[in-house]
Amino acid sequence: MPLRFLTAGESHGQALIVIVEGMPSGLPIKEEEINHQLARRQMGYGRGGRMKIEQDRAEILSGVRAGKTLGSPIALKINNKDWDNWQKVMSSKAGSASGGDVAQDDSGQSKVVHHPRPGHADLPGGMKYDHHDLRNILERASARETAGRVAAGAIARKLLSEFEIEIVGHLVDLGGVQSTTDLAPKKIAEKAEASPLRTVDSKAEERMIAKIDEAKKNGDSLGGIFEIIVTGLPVGLGSHVQWDRKLDGELARAVMSIQAIKGVEIGMGFASAAHFGSEVHDEIFYQAKEKRFYRKTNNAGGLEGGMTNGENLVLRAVMKPLSTLYRPLQSVNIMTKEPYQATVERTDITAVPAASVIGENVVAFTLAQAFLEKFGSDSLKELRRNFEGFLKQCREF
Amino acid sequence: MPLRFLTAGESHGQALIVIVEGMPSGLPIKEEEINHQLARRQMGYGRGGRMKIEQDRAEILSGVRAGKTLGSPIALKINNKDWDNWQKVMSSKAGSASGGDVAQDDSGQSKVVHHPRPGHADLPGGMKYDHHDLRNILERASARETAGRVAAGAIARKLLSEFEIEIVGHLVDLGGVQSTTDLAPKKIAEKAEASPLRTVDSKAEERMIAKIDEAKKNGDSLGGIFEIIVTGLPVGLGSHVQWDRKLDGELARAVMSIQAIKGVEIGMGFASAAHFGSEVHDEIFYQAKEKRFYRKTNNAGGLEGGMTNGENLVLRAVMKPLSTLYRPLQSVNIMTKEPYQATVERTDITAVPAASVIGENVVAFTLAQAFLEKFGSDSLKELRRNFEGFLKQCREF
Amino acid sequence: MPLRFLTAGESHGQALIVIVEGMPSGLPIKEEEINHQLARRQMGYGRGGRMKIEQDRAEILSGVRAGKTLGSPIALKINNKDWDNWQKVMSSKAGSASGGDVAQDDSGQSKVVHHPRPGHADLPGGMKYDHHDLRNILERASARETAGRVAAGAIARKLLSEFEIEIVGHLVDLGGVQSTTDLAPKKIAEKAEASPLRTVDSKAEERMIAKIDEAKKNGDSLGGIFEIIVTGLPVGLGSHVQWDRKLDGELARAVMSIQAIKGVEIGMGFASAAHFGSEVHDEIFYQAKEKRFYRKTNNAGGLEGGMTNGENLVLRAVMKPLSTLYRPLQSVNIMTKEPYQATVERTDITAVPAASVIGENVVAFTLAQAFLEKFGSDSLKELRRNFEGFLKQCREF
Amino acid sequence: MPLRFLTAGESHGQALIVIVEGMPSGLPIKEEEINHQLARRQMGYGRGGRMKIEQDRAEILSGVRAGKTLGSPIALKINNKDWDNWQKVMSSKAGSASGGDVAQDDSGQSKVVHHPRPGHADLPGGMKYDHHDLRNILERASARETAGRVAAGAIARKLLSEFEIEIVGHLVDLGGVQSTTDLAPKKIAEKAEASPLRTVDSKAEERMIAKIDEAKKNGDSLGGIFEIIVTGLPVGLGSHVQWDRKLDGELARAVMSIQAIKGVEIGMGFASAAHFGSEVHDEIFYQAKEKRFYRKTNNAGGLEGGMTNGENLVLRAVMKPLSTLYRPLQSVNIMTKEPYQATVERTDITAVPAASVIGENVVAFTLAQAFLEKFGSDSLKELRRNFEGFLKQCREF
Repeated sequence: MPLRFLTAGESHGQALIVIVEGMPSGLPIKEEEINHQLARRQMGYGRGGRMKIEQDRAEILSGVRAGKTLGSPIALKINNKDWDNWQKVMSSKAGSASGGDVAQDDSGQSKVVHHPRPGHADLPGGMKYDHHDLRNILERASARETAGRVAAGAIARKLLSEFEIEIVGHLVDLGGVQSTTDLAPKKIAEKAEASPLRTVDSKAEERMIAKIDEAKKNGDSLGGIFEIIVTGLPVGLGSHVQWDRKLDGELARAVMSIQAIKGVEIGMGFASAAHFGSEVHDEIFYQAKEKRFYRKTNNAGGLEGGMTNGENLVLRAVMKPLSTLYRPLQSVNIMTKEPYQATVERTDITAVPAASVIGENVVAFTLAQAFLEKFGSDSLKELRRNFEGFLKQCREF
Repeated sequence: MPLRFLTAGESHGQALIVIVEGMPSGLPIKEEEINHQLARRQMGYGRGGRMKIEQDRAEILSGVRAGKTLGSPIALKINNKDWDNWQKVMSSKAGSASGGDVAQDDSGQSKVVHHPRPGHADLPGGMKYDHHDLRNILERASARETAGRVAAGAIARKLLSEFEIEIVGHLVDLGGVQSTTDLAPKKIAEKAEASPLRTVDSKAEERMIAKIDEAKKNGDSLGGIFEIIVTGLPVGLGSHVQWDRKLDGELARAVMSIQAIKGVEIGMGFASAAHFGSEVHDEIFYQAKEKRFYRKTNNAGGLEGGMTNGENLVLRAVMKPLSTLYRPLQSVNIMTKEPYQATVERTDITAVPAASVIGENVVAFTLAQAFLEKFGSDSLKELRRNFEGFLKQCREF
Repeated sequence: MPLRFLTAGESHGQALIVIVEGMPSGLPIKEEEINHQLARRQMGYGRGGRMKIEQDRAEILSGVRAGKTLGSPIALKINNKDWDNWQKVMSSKAGSASGGDVAQDDSGQSKVVHHPRPGHADLPGGMKYDHHDLRNILERASARETAGRVAAGAIARKLLSEFEIEIVGHLVDLGGVQSTTDLAPKKIAEKAEASPLRTVDSKAEERMIAKIDEAKKNGDSLGGIFEIIVTGLPVGLGSHVQWDRKLDGELARAVMSIQAIKGVEIGMGFASAAHFGSEVHDEIFYQAKEKRFYRKTNNAGGLEGGMTNGENLVLRAVMKPLSTLYRPLQSVNIMTKEPYQATVERTDITAVPAASVIGENVVAFTLAQAFLEKFGSDSLKELRRNFEGFLKQCREF
Repeated sequence: MPLRFLTAGESHGQALIVIVEGMPSGLPIKEEEINHQLARRQMGYGRGGRMKIEQDRAEILSGVRAGKTLGSPIALKINNKDWDNWQKVMSSKAGSASGGDVAQDDSGQSKVVHHPRPGHADLPGGMKYDHHDLRNILERASARETAGRVAAGAIARKLLSEFEIEIVGHLVDLGGVQSTTDLAPKKIAEKAEASPLRTVDSKAEERMIAKIDEAKKNGDSLGGIFEIIVTGLPVGLGSHVQWDRKLDGELARAVMSIQAIKGVEIGMGFASAAHFGSEVHDEIFYQAKEKRFYRKTNNAGGLEGGMTNGENLVLRAVMKPLSTLYRPLQSVNIMTKEPYQATVERTDITAVPAASVIGENVVAFTLAQAFLEKFGSDSLKELRRNFEGFLKQCREF
């Protein structure tokens, strides 16, 4: 069994729950390190009100003792701070307010949803699971679930950091405004961390903010593109031998499964269609002193044949504009089949900075899986020994 | 256990082997139907010599009797027609020519590979698996393995076709030359099938051919973008409830794991970064007569919340230019660590038309997995009953 | 993805956590139904004090709304009622009492464990995970973890009961005292439920109690054998087509993985070694009125070729005597390597009645997995339709 | 992805096919080593005629070059020597003899099966997969499939032998005649190998043979019990942390999934029900010179907490008497629903010696999975380094 995780929890439910299985023992981990990633996920210019309510905090319920992992499954709980207001509507108990499609909160406001929102899981989910109160779908389909994935990823990230593998995310496009940089990953991380849009190019940032403000004024929403860079990876994570062991496929799955992501590319990605092969492939050189092979370019984005090649992993993903808009979109009441124009009271304009943080953390988890698959190991001590043995083998290759 | 498959086989080995597990019984399938897909994979302007040698043919070794699947695993064998020339080099037997890094064929020509090709699995694979004869890597990493995946996909495709789910692939970009169309999928399929580049726009086709000829003259290679369209899908394949059950993630994994694919996008994909939400989301309407919900646009590419929504599935993927070039790329001899300029004697200029066929078939397999996960079933009869029951339920939703 | 679950939690940790993934929507489920199974697990003559402290109660944190499953993952939390007394020792925080092998509780009593108990995970686990405080192993290896599995099984059991599949467990041997019965399963269930040892034969029960009292006097422990009977199963769960899809294998895995179980047998089991084939195989007959095939004997225990055959599933498992004894066993201090005689202050004499309940519930989960694999389905409505369609198909076979 | 395998192939089909995925590179393996295990599977007193026809030989089609594994999937093909006689009946082609339930061989003899055999997959399989020619079930359900599992296990066994892990199987019961021994495993292996019944006690062997002869005379069949002993295992394979990672469960699944196996027990197994705990648990001692913990008894059978504890693994399984008998059993014609008495022309009397060999090899595969899960590794060199590092860690524990 490789490293794995499951999340559970509805958006307005009592809590999100995560179980992470297969982490080696002896890894130092603090709730604050998980909470730091959760907080990064909640930031970003263009967010509406809800993010402020939540201030997500993960509580470690198992698998960690005296600051270190035990090797047993790690359970995390992220309470919903707004639970008191939703308890009646979301209760697991029969006979609660939500029974028979008449969910109401204490103010008597109906919480039943009969109007599927375009671009959401509402309608296909309702039909698949035979729910006519679409709240039964949207609660789980909500991007709030990604808090669980970020928490799992935060632990994976801690593991990778023990081996000096670091993950950087930043925005390269928001609403069509592009941000470019030739900074080193470490610098990108610093700048992105200081930016309200997790972007490096401050000129672009200004125009992005203007674009967000314009969208806000029009009751509209925006998407964008983020880039993930991973430094410090050893050669040989993933494998070419079977289709389902290729690391590029695994990464694409993890990132594409994030809510609202509609595309993933690695290295030069889609741009490589318009180049000749001689412009794309990264020539190979040898550094005699460090006894390592290297490339001067990195159009492959650090992956060849479904494996890491020792260069930085570079991956980009596009997030579509949020599908909840102030500006009403045409829909249909699923009970009456009558047309309906959805209105919302509160939403974000854009969430690409958050998506960038989510992207970092799902990439971290996927890489930790590949890392543990290659190096085995039940304890950090053993993992370090196996890892260093392989590095030495590579130098002597 | 859902539907699954494994492939085995080296590029110049005796044969490719595929096992497909989990197909229901009673599905009519002929070797010719599989071979038809294998043949489509071998076509395309810009291919070199090897494709002609092979003329792949799959032999069904198990799981099918009297023209119908049994429900037991289906084993396929695709012989390497050139095996006689490679037997000595690739033999499984110790003491054979390849022992001790001195593989030679009958002509005495050494087949040992010490020069990793940029853009290939050669170097990371050699280091990972501790092989100094890189043939031990490149033989499996070769795109020839995709013949196995196409064969598996051909069976999946046959299953889907029983439910009138059809899969169309065509080229939308080759070397930066774009082909656009507003034809219906059925028409696209017809036109693509008749085109040497699997593309619909004959003007673009001309320019693509010119581009290939130019690349050939320069000893260079080209990539491109293909699009897959799937018609006839029911609502509700995939699921929003857990990250690893989202169909967009599964599709991205399957397609990104194809050799040389560096990006995957769904629906409007990367272009959605530059649009407002109001321009992107597909409004929902109801067709009272057919009792079904529909959209007038399809920017979501048929997937919402990780589930099919009843519209056509639309997915695009980019293939980088082939990394084997006539024009030498700089590399390093892994034994001496000296620089080396790789030369090749025979290669393709581009393989995007083939990749498009591979894409169709891996998408078919992924959809068949989701289909069987939703509808269960051990026999085609049962599957049809369960499927039709659900369609009726959707009409009555 | 089939139905799956993960559990987390240490024995004296804050809580046990369970995530059940893949349950269809629309299944009515109450916390009380889960708690009922948890309570059954805590009963039985021969238990020590701890069971009384706990009074396990599962709280549903997600996946259920207004008394019905949503189709989304179901998270359960079972709090440790004794957490206040253990918080200091088991805290996840660094710098807490347990740091550096000096865990103490508030009374100053050291909770560090350096003496591995024979028959437990302590020593192999400590070596595998590189823990010198063996508490880091025993906390997770404890049979308390089975509360999580029972909770997951309780939901599966509810699903099965919707299709009139019922699961009965009873003791057939305790400490060598055998209990036999020829009652129908329903009667067995009633009698077992009323017995402090979950056994049907009241004569045997008396002797079992005497045996337990004898063991208690001697500071010793006892094992035994329980039997699980499942009624109402359809034909065709599991499959013969691949080794890892055989239901007998899946059942054996689930039951053998219960703490202290050392053997599993199906139907006539080990006794079939001493019989001729003509005495073992269940002849086949046809009931024309109900249009069904049946057997007059059931030595196969309801499974042929790795599939249910429509007869009752019958399975037995042996639990070794508890490995924690009042009577000291020889061991070694892992720090000093000096011999050591383990003493305990509180333990149970036997836990076979509890194991029987655990067995019922893990069998329920395994059967629900096979059931959903065969019938697919996202909602109870769809599942019922698919199930009934298949029953009809069987009648018309 | 851990080590995995799939088999395919019908009993009278063209060939059995196996794909083994996840073997490290650099493992020396010869076809003869696989064939040796296949030959051992075909031996044993009490077999009928078919075994002689077959003389199974595995051909390595991929994944091995110059005598060593490549790290890529290993495909094996075991041809059916009798294929010429069955080609017409078993052809995959539509319109072949078997179409429409009228399969005939060249002699005009119908090969359609409408009479399900008690104790076989025939009837439940036919109903599940909607086959009325039960040949479509029995061909795959046949124990011939285990040749594929033995072949996969033979490779796993070779891997284990590189680490001096050896696997011994022998018969401890045939038809109720018990064979006991206190010999060391190595001696047991030698004696079993020389015995036509793979049993050690020559007195018992005589009585077993007499029992087989008696059964033969009566047209009856016999089952029995075999024992598997594994020596040389390191501490810490498997894990206590999650139910599906316990090695005892994995082993039980692998062994119980062998055709006709109805029970599995580990160590003292079912006998432990009748003993006090003080008689069952293996006390722990320390060997200062070799720096290792050990036990003087091994009632746990080498597994504690779902992990190997460094003692020999000891496992027993019961095989029911063969369900194909000369002596007719009552059954029903599935077309007419009329009673029918099955007769057979050729069958074995017992196959427990073969089952013992199958047991050895499925245990080998399961242990190799656990071994690679713990030690990771892509090459034998790396695996050896990681393994030895852990052994040293254990000595320093």
